[in-house]
Amino acid sequence: MTPGERRPRPAAGRPPLTPGAGLERLSLNTATVRGRGLLEAVDACARAGVPWIAPWRDQLGALPPARAGRAIADAGLRVSSLCRGGFFSAATAVERRDRIEDNLRAVDEAAELGADVLVLVCGGLPDRDLAGARAMVADGIAAIEPHARARGMRLGIEPLHPMFAADRSVITTLGEANALAARLDSPAVGVIVDAYHVWWDPRLREEIAVAARHTLGFHVSDWIVPLPDVLDGRGMMGDGFIDLRGMRRDVDAAGYRGAIEVEIFNQALRARPLDDVLATMVARYREAVLGDGENARSDG
Amino acid sequence: MTPGERRPRPAAGRPPLTPGAGLERLSLNTATVRGRGLLEAVDACARAGVPWIAPWRDQLGALPPARAGRAIADAGLRVSSLCRGGFFSAATAVERRDRIEDNLRAVDEAAELGADVLVLVCGGLPDRDLAGARAMVADGIAAIEPHARARGMRLGIEPLHPMFAADRSVITTLGEANALAARLDSPAVGVIVDAYHVWWDPRLREEIAVAARHTLGFHVSDWIVPLPDVLDGRGMMGDGFIDLRGMRRDVDAAGYRGAIEVEIFNQALRARPLDDVLATMVARYREAVLGDGENARSDG
Repeated sequence: MTPGERRPRPAAGRPPLTPGAGLERLSLNTATVRGRGLLEAVDACARAGVPWIAPWRDQLGALPPARAGRAIADAGLRVSSLCRGGFFSAATAVERRDRIEDNLRAVDEAAELGADVLVLVCGGLPDRDLAGARAMVADGIAAIEPHARARGMRLGIEPLHPMFAADRSVITTLGEANALAARLDSPAVGVIVDAYHVWWDPRLREEIAVAARHTLGFHVSDWIVPLPDVLDGRGMMGDGFIDLRGMRRDVDAAGYRGAIEVEIFNQALRARPLDDVLATMVARYREAVLGDGENARSDG
Repeated sequence: MTPGERRPRPAAGRPPLTPGAGLERLSLNTATVRGRGLLEAVDACARAGVPWIAPWRDQLGALPPARAGRAIADAGLRVSSLCRGGFFSAATAVERRDRIEDNLRAVDEAAELGADVLVLVCGGLPDRDLAGARAMVADGIAAIEPHARARGMRLGIEPLHPMFAADRSVITTLGEANALAARLDSPAVGVIVDAYHVWWDPRLREEIAVAARHTLGFHVSDWIVPLPDVLDGRGMMGDGFIDLRGMRRDVDAAGYRGAIEVEIFNQALRARPLDDVLATMVARYREAVLGDGENARSDG
């Protein structure tokens, strides 16, 4: 298996759905449709010809991961990742141990779901010690890595936008995520490139190239101005200032062949009818992410 | 003159005010008290023993810069910088030329005011071309550099937090500002370190050391959670997650000896009585920026 490829999981039900033209890599990250049940989102993907889905743990609701995985496979979809593990930094050793245990459970849930990537949002600051929090993150990932490896799960370190450094992730740049992955030096550890979080970085192209061998996911949305909200202010692809097509080309050129997840935290979008959201997402993916009739096929 | 030192300007009026104990480097950036007249802010600084002030151009109001400068000197204060020039990136050549002309005027205003640093907020994105906008910024600074040098003015490139990359500054890291200053290679061009904008950066300590020879300003405020507002959400020093004392030590260790400006964009703070704001600012500066009875004197 070359890096960036996804292992097809044996589908319990019908064969993979036939994706819409050019949509071979498109994935719905369920944060985009938060408030809907997972099965509702799965059905909407199948209707729209979107072949991948990335559930959030808390959005599985009462559905056990294995059952959710079967429902996804039965609809002919595949899982591009499970969101999210992480939040390793905490004020006390007891809390840090709790976080690690929760991450071990998340690895199991991802495996039961049929994902081969668990996305890590690493955690913010318990106090003013940034270097200390970063060390806690490195220790936390190292602590769960053997279990992830044993279960064939890969851990995707997702650098978050620096505006989340205090409360969500002290890992703020792709360079830092790459360095952390290099230090951990495991086939089970890689990085996630989320356009919204990293687009502004003057070192982005170089770090995308460095990430090549361990890029485990590519997420798209857009940066709109004025930002409607720090947490819930992402835009639909094409509505903002990110050169998504250019970034997609760079990620592809680096060798990534996996799914492209649409992850848009936006209150107004969630209020729209589900099929309408999916139709817009598909159209904008073609226009703003693929563009110009370029090829962006999945090997997965 | 060693780098980082301020040239004392000949005071038109009374001798420099005697600063409060430990306040030798403390400066009020007038954004903190936006809504008040400059002269009102000057008087409040004098009452509080704050020896420096950094006016914003638009806050001079009807006051000509030379008159504002005299009023500041008459109160025994000194000007640590004028905010702000910049905004070089724009969609058309005509607009870019207008911006450059405005910056040439800003250099003159800074000189008339008695500042020796003009702070540059470089400008955001006219479209999705980040590299293009960054080139416009470099061209813009190069275009005004000869005039700044001729007038003895220094241009401080201020990297802004990446959340302002689209609308305010495509220069988002101290590393990028340092690289730009190095490329322009002029005694008239340096950088500004603003804690709020750069605190999250994993490369901060290294870049503060690199910036040593051309650091023209150090601004403090704090990062509070949850962020009340993207633009107006800064906190008072000590209320948030930034290790200001550590950063001040690093900036000092790199050789910076100039003023330390308090620049807090915060609606609630502006609503408080002026003397109350200054008293809190002085107390928090001592506690959260200096701390531990350390020395942080000005050579200026």
